[in-house]
Amino acid sequence: MKKEKNFPRATIERLPLYYKALQFLDNEEIITTTAIDLAKILNITPETLRKDLNYFGHFGIKGAGYDVLNLKNQIANILGLQNYWRLAIIGVGNLGAALANYEKITEWGFIVAALFDIDEKKIGDEINGVRIYDFNKFVPISRRKLIDIGVITVPAAAAQNVADTFVEAGVKGIWNFTAAKIEVPKDFIVVDENLMNGLGALSFYLNRNSH
Amino acid sequence: MKKEKNFPRATIERLPLYYKALQFLDNEEIITTTAIDLAKILNITPETLRKDLNYFGHFGIKGAGYDVLNLKNQIANILGLQNYWRLAIIGVGNLGAALANYEKITEWGFIVAALFDIDEKKIGDEINGVRIYDFNKFVPISRRKLIDIGVITVPAAAAQNVADTFVEAGVKGIWNFTAAKIEVPKDFIVVDENLMNGLGALSFYLNRNSH
Repeated sequence: MKKEKNFPRATIERLPLYYKALQFLDNEEIITTTAIDLAKILNITPETLRKDLNYFGHFGIKGAGYDVLNLKNQIANILGLQNYWRLAIIGVGNLGAALANYEKITEWGFIVAALFDIDEKKIGDEINGVRIYDFNKFVPISRRKLIDIGVITVPAAAAQNVADTFVEAGVKGIWNFTAAKIEVPKDFIVVDENLMNGLGALSFYLNRNSH
Repeated sequence: MKKEKNFPRATIERLPLYYKALQFLDNEEIITTTAIDLAKILNITPETLRKDLNYFGHFGIKGAGYDVLNLKNQIANILGLQNYWRLAIIGVGNLGAALANYEKITEWGFIVAALFDIDEKKIGDEINGVRIYDFNKFVPISRRKLIDIGVITVPAAAAQNVADTFVEAGVKGIWNFTAAKIEVPKDFIVVDENLMNGLGALSFYLNRNSH
């Protein structure tokens, strides 16, 4: 990994929002936009948007704003979406099945390449055309299917074991939906998905409104 | 709604993370912590943490850091978790069912009070002890069950219709899992849950690492 500047985590987490907003504008056949308009859609300040984008280059055209399609493609490149990362989802309960059916994942260029479970009644079934494999055979199947990202939707108590298996198989990216704190060697990347952030923020605003 | 200062959106969205980290420390029976230690757990700077908390008061004890349980309870108050908000989930597909089973929701003090669908095969069933009702009867059932927050897990095309029904029923908080842009009167609060933020950030880090 080459030495590079550190990008603020908040900036990285806003990039997918920018991508989503530009996708929306592009679908509406809007050709150009401005920092002010884009910021308004996202409920942030134009300064935040400009500052975030400045980390990665100069995208605006003086006096003309941004070309929607071009900026969308540039952000896709920054996000690495052109890699067509291959996902495996471990734990085909309701959440795993919901993710296997989640259209945005494929719309953004990710590929759900395999599902895994330990429940014999599920192994061999398919969801959305993707087969459920025996998790005990994860390492060879993952290597054959070139898995880049492992998604953990098992009970929290089983999460570290799943992550250890990812490490053994060389799966470098982990999207963790459990409450478990996962430990991996330092060149592995774990992103925790905490669904309570949104509900917590909603509670905050409701609480303020009710006073 | 009384006039009050505006809190930065990023601060509000970090409060649930602080709550989660303090819950973790409390479960580990850790009595006190410092801004530095808490920031390390959360992978943010101590300055960000201090600045965020300063919006709401002074919580630290000079030279002694924070009392974990006390700070946890204060943040619960700021987040309004003591309201025991009552949720209804609309659309009992895989995602709706996963949320109905999501333990964190009840652990944080929210109550899943009712589920709704339009599929006659599902109406009358229960998930996790909570009944699935006919969405066509949402308004009277919602009023009887004192629903505060409506969770939308229907297909995107049906989301606005669900939101309109929430408005009719007086359900002020909306947790939207669809890609639809929902329009509601201005005293209603919509929080969009975009699962792609986490996966997008993961792709970014993987892409950087692979160069």
